[in-house]
Amino acid sequence: MVKLYDFLLSGNCYKVRLLLSLLGVEHELVAVDLKSGEHKKPPFLALNAFGQVPVLVDGDVVIRDSQAILVYLARRYGGSDWLPEDAALLGKVSQWLSTASKEIANTVATARLHYLFGASIDVAAIEKQSYTVLKAIDEHLATRQWLECDRPTIADLACFPYIGLAADGKLSLDAYPNIVAWIDRIKQLPGYVGMPGL
Amino acid sequence: MVKLYDFLLSGNCYKVRLLLSLLGVEHELVAVDLKSGEHKKPPFLALNAFGQVPVLVDGDVVIRDSQAILVYLARRYGGSDWLPEDAALLGKVSQWLSTASKEIANTVATARLHYLFGASIDVAAIEKQSYTVLKAIDEHLATRQWLECDRPTIADLACFPYIGLAADGKLSLDAYPNIVAWIDRIKQLPGYVGMPGL
Repeated sequence: MVKLYDFLLSGNCYKVRLLLSLLGVEHELVAVDLKSGEHKKPPFLALNAFGQVPVLVDGDVVIRDSQAILVYLARRYGGSDWLPEDAALLGKVSQWLSTASKEIANTVATARLHYLFGASIDVAAIEKQSYTVLKAIDEHLATRQWLECDRPTIADLACFPYIGLAADGKLSLDAYPNIVAWIDRIKQLPGYVGMPGL
Repeated sequence: MVKLYDFLLSGNCYKVRLLLSLLGVEHELVAVDLKSGEHKKPPFLALNAFGQVPVLVDGDVVIRDSQAILVYLARRYGGSDWLPEDAALLGKVSQWLSTASKEIANTVATARLHYLFGASIDVAAIEKQSYTVLKAIDEHLATRQWLECDRPTIADLACFPYIGLAADGKLSLDAYPNIVAWIDRIKQLPGYVGMPGL
């Protein structure tokens, strides 16, 4: 059975749990104790040398990094439903996987790390950068229901969690009505599951 | 013709130029004047709302983000040569696209930003984190010629530039012989082109 090394409050782990649920893939969750530093020690480092959750184990396939796990699960269990085959559409979706691991991780997710887990950051700078990123995404969604392909893909699942958890980082989505409507659409997908804060 | 919005000294632009050359795709380079802030103003923001190079334009297909552009070009012009189709291998390669936009961008590439372009960083912290990332990659390469698939893929092209440019960030690769050998293998690929510092 698919095994996910997981941390309940991680938005990156959550996006994998969400896709597993949307795809109806049976799986086992293995809680990793981040507080005691289990992810920075063996045996966990053998699964992911970068010492981060999530990690997915499916038979002899081991995949680290939430975006890569979305790619794997989408193709393996969803065909092209959640990840298109066509080069242009694949590239379009891939853009948002990078946005999730770069722009969103470095702004709204970092603000949340500060308020929830005590990470040391330049609060004013991160807040400003967060709103710049949110504004760009809100404008992109002004003419679209989904980030790409006119249907839900892993682009949406990759970007949605930390944006949906913005309040945890004391950031408001009030000025971004297109983002709020998009979050609502995601929450109505058949098989949707939430997480604390969502 | 394929058009790349480019900055000569950007490792992210370079990785796209490299794949274009390896694939033998004719293209036009459009230099973006980062010093004058051209990337943060219209009309460039219409190409990439996040205000960053590279951006690729191929007919009516516009793709931002270097990793996403590698995905697009590999599939569009290289079939499965540089990006496998199989779910497990696609997931494996995708891991390294995230490593490039996260671990490598936030460490060795950030050190280079500091020394070359004056970015304000915590030098000691970034240096320590850089060597942690380099060590993990060096150990991964101890038993492999390429990051995944026993052949060069966009995983290698995504990760190689900023690692190869480590000296620009006053970081040494001396302790990482497997990385040094891997860089040499990349430099011997037919169609290889360099950039300043490489």
